[in-house]
Amino acid sequence: MRCHRCKASAVIEVRRNNAAFCEGCFLTVFRKQVARTIDKWEMIGGGDRVLVAVSGGKDSLALWDALLDLGHDTSGLYLGLGIGTYSDRSYAAAEGFARSRGATLETVDLAGEHGFDIPTAGRRGPRSTCAVCGLSKRYIFNRAAVDGGYDVLATGHNLDDEAATLLGNTLRWDTEFIARQSPVLPARGGMVKKVKPLHRLSELETAAFAFLRGIDYVVEECPLVAGNTQLRYKDAMNAIEARSPGVKARFFLGYLDRGAPLFRSEDRAEVGACARCGQPTTGTYCAFCRAKAQIAGERLGPAGDRQVAEELADEVLPAELYEIALAEAE
Amino acid sequence: MRCHRCKASAVIEVRRNNAAFCEGCFLTVFRKQVARTIDKWEMIGGGDRVLVAVSGGKDSLALWDALLDLGHDTSGLYLGLGIGTYSDRSYAAAEGFARSRGATLETVDLAGEHGFDIPTAGRRGPRSTCAVCGLSKRYIFNRAAVDGGYDVLATGHNLDDEAATLLGNTLRWDTEFIARQSPVLPARGGMVKKVKPLHRLSELETAAFAFLRGIDYVVEECPLVAGNTQLRYKDAMNAIEARSPGVKARFFLGYLDRGAPLFRSEDRAEVGACARCGQPTTGTYCAFCRAKAQIAGERLGPAGDRQVAEELADEVLPAELYEIALAEAE
Repeated sequence: MRCHRCKASAVIEVRRNNAAFCEGCFLTVFRKQVARTIDKWEMIGGGDRVLVAVSGGKDSLALWDALLDLGHDTSGLYLGLGIGTYSDRSYAAAEGFARSRGATLETVDLAGEHGFDIPTAGRRGPRSTCAVCGLSKRYIFNRAAVDGGYDVLATGHNLDDEAATLLGNTLRWDTEFIARQSPVLPARGGMVKKVKPLHRLSELETAAFAFLRGIDYVVEECPLVAGNTQLRYKDAMNAIEARSPGVKARFFLGYLDRGAPLFRSEDRAEVGACARCGQPTTGTYCAFCRAKAQIAGERLGPAGDRQVAEELADEVLPAELYEIALAEAE
Repeated sequence: MRCHRCKASAVIEVRRNNAAFCEGCFLTVFRKQVARTIDKWEMIGGGDRVLVAVSGGKDSLALWDALLDLGHDTSGLYLGLGIGTYSDRSYAAAEGFARSRGATLETVDLAGEHGFDIPTAGRRGPRSTCAVCGLSKRYIFNRAAVDGGYDVLATGHNLDDEAATLLGNTLRWDTEFIARQSPVLPARGGMVKKVKPLHRLSELETAAFAFLRGIDYVVEECPLVAGNTQLRYKDAMNAIEARSPGVKARFFLGYLDRGAPLFRSEDRAEVGACARCGQPTTGTYCAFCRAKAQIAGERLGPAGDRQVAEELADEVLPAELYEIALAEAE
């Protein structure tokens, strides 16, 4: 197999594009793809300070590496989730990368700052482990970006992630979630601008990029992820992709091109400030404060607040909290 | 396991509804479901004459059986596709059912009336076997319904069919096809009203109904269907359904409820009459006449017609026809 660009011996085949590349050309093409995506979607303006959400995995480190080489002003943020040695290895990878590139890595420790870690949250709260983990990341990354005065928060979501998420949202026809699945979410009401510069690149490509760049990333999956619904959607997409190469890209990019305009009217959430922490939310209390209270077994808001009780009752609550909420609303 | 309605011993479990039924209750519930669907979507008016598209399989015979028992004025139409002994057995099943119920079965023979059978079409034309088969059925059933003065054409598409088709259309974001995926398509410009009364019932339920009713249907799949893309989508949906019972129903019924309104503006095809056969089409020639000409190696339309050449060039054509079309358009 020969490189599509320079005819040298190829090291990677991108089947959906019927293309193959040597090491040098692949790195060049990958960075060009990231740069084009940033330009096309106006993700990062001149002089913007970018916070990169860094997990220690291939996607976020590949993203950070590409952004550094493209000359953007970036810092990384690592969130300590407290998932045993998996978190230790993830931090070491993030920290090692930052050191090797002379880049700044900020850290937030979930247990230290908020009193719970993800394994505890999964056992105690009403939500799945992955649900609490996801909402904690969204909350903490956004807050850190706003508090740190960053202009943009960049995440390493790749094409496989976006296609699987879109499949899940579409299987439920969750039109609001579909409407918000954009590579760029502009800043609004306490929410920093969010961008996904890798959304056109597959998991295979981000892994190859990280490997060829010699990045020492955490290869293992999170030990808590087994049975996760997102993984089921990835499996389903992979099964279809194996028989119809390119379907994943056509699905997500076709959505952006032809589907998204039809869903625009569905993004009608009105954002206010959480009554406890002041961060943006569409309810009285933000999802993070609600989760945190549930995990700690605390009450949110004054006794007898019917609106809060109804918001809480919309979720699956531990029986005792649910009863308190209802009793107080009577 | 006990019957959900009468507590007798159950013979079928409907997992997505957490329900189980004895034979008698299942048949009652199935027919009620069909009747409710017909009412809700105003599928069949009082005095309407209904043509049922009958393949000899479980779905179409279960549909016909239920429509007869619900008191509708129905005839069946069997289309002979010329797929060897599979077609022979299918016809025998359709004919046997009609005789047992004292119902009228009309037949059209594709080779006798149009000069080709499906295996030949699959080998000769540019389309896949399943594509020619599908468009031939749509053409002939519609034409027979219009010519026979029927008010409604009913097909046996079940929930699994509709969910798989919707998955395929959504993976391609084929917004026009998504927009037209309705349980009822009203009559317009030469197209008879089309209804799918089984769209809420799964393949398992239609099979159980046909079996419990003692209908002698063709169990085997069409021998030409291997590798069919529709089957891949069914496999993908089944893999997700196995781990999340109910996802198929939520996907298709959720589309009807929340997705369809957003796609309404996409159904903008303007229907005219085919320049060869006069049947409805959105182009100069209908898909059936184009396929038929390609299979026979004939030219469609006068030499030098640029519009026809462009329409034909939009499809994958056998090389020689494509060259004729282009040369004539110069």
